[in-house]
Amino acid sequence: MTYCVGILLADGIVLASDSRTNAGVDNFATFCKMTVFERPGDRVLVLLSSGNLAGTQAVINVLKQRCDATDGTPNLWTARTLFDATMLVSDAVRDIERRDAPFLESGPIAFNASFIVGGQIRGEPPRLFRVYAEGNFIEAGEDTPFLQTGEAKYGKPIIDRVISPTTTLADATKCVLVSFDSTMRSNLSVGMPIDLVCYERDSLEIPMRRRFDQGDEYFAALSADWRAGVRKVFRELPELEW
Amino acid sequence: MTYCVGILLADGIVLASDSRTNAGVDNFATFCKMTVFERPGDRVLVLLSSGNLAGTQAVINVLKQRCDATDGTPNLWTARTLFDATMLVSDAVRDIERRDAPFLESGPIAFNASFIVGGQIRGEPPRLFRVYAEGNFIEAGEDTPFLQTGEAKYGKPIIDRVISPTTTLADATKCVLVSFDSTMRSNLSVGMPIDLVCYERDSLEIPMRRRFDQGDEYFAALSADWRAGVRKVFRELPELEW
Repeated sequence: MTYCVGILLADGIVLASDSRTNAGVDNFATFCKMTVFERPGDRVLVLLSSGNLAGTQAVINVLKQRCDATDGTPNLWTARTLFDATMLVSDAVRDIERRDAPFLESGPIAFNASFIVGGQIRGEPPRLFRVYAEGNFIEAGEDTPFLQTGEAKYGKPIIDRVISPTTTLADATKCVLVSFDSTMRSNLSVGMPIDLVCYERDSLEIPMRRRFDQGDEYFAALSADWRAGVRKVFRELPELEW
Repeated sequence: MTYCVGILLADGIVLASDSRTNAGVDNFATFCKMTVFERPGDRVLVLLSSGNLAGTQAVINVLKQRCDATDGTPNLWTARTLFDATMLVSDAVRDIERRDAPFLESGPIAFNASFIVGGQIRGEPPRLFRVYAEGNFIEAGEDTPFLQTGEAKYGKPIIDRVISPTTTLADATKCVLVSFDSTMRSNLSVGMPIDLVCYERDSLEIPMRRRFDQGDEYFAALSADWRAGVRKVFRELPELEW
């Protein structure tokens, strides 16, 4: 499993991914699921990947190799808009699917690679997309400013309650980390380290990128304070009169 | 879908169920999923049902009819312990499964009836069980004092954070209602009214039973206060220093 979140705010975007992969409960490993394409002053693209690791790694490699092309092949450095960039991710997903899917048919695990794509290209506002395994995709908007992939249910209520487009980047960062904490408590297939990017609108660079590993002091304090805060809120909620 | 929760505390038990049933998104209905067997001073048994309505209703009817038997058939009024009572629920599940399952095999929906059974029989402490669709069952304990069925993921984190065996009945009641609110925001197949029982240890009766319907003032206030409280906690959590 996996847990990835992207939140689109008036002030920018917060993106985070876990790093656990597993094939059964007895075969765990750690792989970064966040890939950043950054050209300061021009564009910032962050990809969060969910699905079978072979599929998502292949898609990322194809995207990177196309970036090195010198024959004018459209790529993530030349895409004019984030919509166009997401189309390129979609194309790469479908290319790998065409290659791999027939060989996976005989086994129990189907081809499955999906992505959250967020960032900003100069001339546009920040945008956030989710590419499904079939290659079609949706864009976040004001009504639903966040997109999740993987084990999304445990961590969704807290985002629902806290996030609106005007939430600050600082509050959204805390909210994303609590959402991961809630998810990791309930699903062993989502695990640290957590990779987090906090992108400030129109900055066109990523100075705020951080990895939270087991035992991270800030993460532990946040988790403890959140638990204590929530218990306090409960004590102060009105009691039911029978 | 369905959402049912039972929480076992030092002070008693809180049990709650939603009332939405559906066959596809265009066929919704409301049915109470909570059944109470109460003989003040002797025993209190609360059953929360999940699964196909035909199956769960049949199980409940069989249990009720056996209670009327005058031929000495063991039933929920004569069971000596809550373990024995849960065995009777399990037996009824298996009886209905034997009857119905073969006829459901040709269709897309398999037999599926599962129950949360909580309460107290004089001479024992309060106990809480979950009966699976196969009729086997588990009992809640100090390490995991709550059991859920149905759409359990959205509402689990808040219970995880708040509930311990020493939580008061009043706080657990609030927590259960917030857990339902979180679930109903995300899954249309879980819906009001919510039936809730708050059982006080050794009382052997249920004076605290309440149905929360659409527009319930207390529920609306609780939901609004919780949202405001959570946002305040977030503002006060330590900010990440980059």
